[in-house]
Amino acid sequence: MTSRRQTRQVSLGPLLMGGGAPVVIQSMTNTHTHDADATIAQIRKLAAAGCQAVRVATPTKRDTAALPAILAAAPIPVIADVHYHFERALEAIDAGVHKIRLNPGNINDRSQVERVIAACRERKMPIRVGVNEGSIVERKDAAVRAQELAAIAQDPHDQLIRLMIDKLADYVRIFEENDFEDLVLSVKSPDPRVVIDAHRTVSERFGYPVHLGVTHAGPPNTGRIRSVAALATLLADGIGDTIRISYAADPIHEVHDAKELLCCLGLQPREGPELIACPTCGRLEIDLVKLVADVQRRLADVKAPVKVAIMGCVVNGPGEADGADVALLAGKGRGVICVQGRQVRTVTEAEMLDALYEEVQAFARR
Amino acid sequence: MTSRRQTRQVSLGPLLMGGGAPVVIQSMTNTHTHDADATIAQIRKLAAAGCQAVRVATPTKRDTAALPAILAAAPIPVIADVHYHFERALEAIDAGVHKIRLNPGNINDRSQVERVIAACRERKMPIRVGVNEGSIVERKDAAVRAQELAAIAQDPHDQLIRLMIDKLADYVRIFEENDFEDLVLSVKSPDPRVVIDAHRTVSERFGYPVHLGVTHAGPPNTGRIRSVAALATLLADGIGDTIRISYAADPIHEVHDAKELLCCLGLQPREGPELIACPTCGRLEIDLVKLVADVQRRLADVKAPVKVAIMGCVVNGPGEADGADVALLAGKGRGVICVQGRQVRTVTEAEMLDALYEEVQAFARR
Repeated sequence: MTSRRQTRQVSLGPLLMGGGAPVVIQSMTNTHTHDADATIAQIRKLAAAGCQAVRVATPTKRDTAALPAILAAAPIPVIADVHYHFERALEAIDAGVHKIRLNPGNINDRSQVERVIAACRERKMPIRVGVNEGSIVERKDAAVRAQELAAIAQDPHDQLIRLMIDKLADYVRIFEENDFEDLVLSVKSPDPRVVIDAHRTVSERFGYPVHLGVTHAGPPNTGRIRSVAALATLLADGIGDTIRISYAADPIHEVHDAKELLCCLGLQPREGPELIACPTCGRLEIDLVKLVADVQRRLADVKAPVKVAIMGCVVNGPGEADGADVALLAGKGRGVICVQGRQVRTVTEAEMLDALYEEVQAFARR
Repeated sequence: MTSRRQTRQVSLGPLLMGGGAPVVIQSMTNTHTHDADATIAQIRKLAAAGCQAVRVATPTKRDTAALPAILAAAPIPVIADVHYHFERALEAIDAGVHKIRLNPGNINDRSQVERVIAACRERKMPIRVGVNEGSIVERKDAAVRAQELAAIAQDPHDQLIRLMIDKLADYVRIFEENDFEDLVLSVKSPDPRVVIDAHRTVSERFGYPVHLGVTHAGPPNTGRIRSVAALATLLADGIGDTIRISYAADPIHEVHDAKELLCCLGLQPREGPELIACPTCGRLEIDLVKLVADVQRRLADVKAPVKVAIMGCVVNGPGEADGADVALLAGKGRGVICVQGRQVRTVTEAEMLDALYEEVQAFARR
């Protein structure tokens, strides 16, 4: 794996982002932010699942008015997502949020941006400049818009990336001319190829921390493939200081998948068991799919990062068991449990789950 | 995106693999191969879902004896997975399978390998050399084994990859010394980082087609993150001529996810609608999660690659609708349908799904 690209370091409440700090997992509430109770409840759930910073939408003044209550209760840093109305940014900064996100596609007035910069500077608060494929094409001037859409149609991939990076660069210049450098950059699209190439360009051209995400990825069944495809490729390249996986679903899934992604790439230590299992094939003598589900449930309260293998196979089973901390080699009606490659117990099918749990807990205590 | 790495081209029944041919989606049955009826039924389901070649386990003579019946009924090429017993390979070749997979970890006798090579050469049949992390460490000689495990413990990542590549290179030499070059190579591990770095090395050192997979990835909820993380990173790098995603689950999930992965990276044309949707946030005025699920069901029989956007948002909704073929912008109690960015219908909530279906079908006919 490539080492991580060096970026400027910024603070996000008590967290550090960029400059080699661990990749921060973000999610976003889908409650109405003005419903402070519902928003706080969702933030607590996301934080308990491993979310490290949370974004909330602030389309109206009622939403920013709820921020003090939310901030008082939130166990993790809160980021205000601001579109169209720069006043929402000023209100959110005033309420003490930990970061602001601005979209260059809809807050473009230089004097407005400069008022937000001044307020953030005073609070030492970072700003994410978040370009979205959906809002790069200027909607005010019909002629310019038609021209840009025509250019995109000619060479969709490269033109789209050029337009997005140009938009980002123009906006970043406003901040740099105001000597404000606590920036985080992102350039999102629903197309993983655009996300990959756009963020590679961002990483080459700018030294600011990078926020990765595939926008509008859709429901989890397809969205997780698109999101992981883009984010893993960039992370494996050393690019990315914070990530948000986004689905049209309960945001808790975003956090579960983000955690698994960072753990499996070695970018976050694992909490709880790592399960490896046979891919199931015509050599199986047991219902491995059911057994794996049973084991997941039985080990749900284990917090130690124990590597557990569930194998129903003489081909790869014993070999994989060498690499696992605790392994269950399950055959017809009976199983063998190995600890670090050494056979420690032979059990009946009925005893399997409890025996595995005991050995995993015993291993975790050592 | 990087262009695809050039590899030697081999045939897999009527398919081509390597040398710029489209990436082939593989899966593996988890029926007992000797149960020909169950195996044929599963192969037909996998093929209908988009699987292009299927592997079957052949641990016993009863399994290879079922191959003629399976081959007569299978709509896609069949690959025999052979471990321990080289006779299974000879029987499978005789039955007319389209490819053989050998594991250097358990068929090591040179004269046995040469008999398999001779049989494959006669049939112009390719062989996959599939090294698995689980079976690289020699199990016969306890002293050698202890030494290799100790080396891995010292520097797990690099030593493991070195051992796997050495094993592969030694085995490939047998084939090259016999002037047999219709090879496909793979080096699987449950760790995506090992899979990424090992296949990068394979791609640099050898010119043969590459088969990608994360072995023992576990159940789909975590396995798909690990598999997509490794495979997307390699595919985005231009590496990989065939892929198998493997889960401890019904293999149909492997095919669905493999298809979505290749489509979203532009490596396979999309069949049926591509759904993009809001990530849901505090700006929503409707239950978008339910709406997206309803739309997925309503459009299930659409076969054309129409890009459909489901948006509940004034921020990115209209912009994304520009990029989509057909878009539904859903608000409180009513919705607007756009076709290629132009508003064509305003509908009530009750009419939404049918109206969207009509517009998608109308667009597909054009």
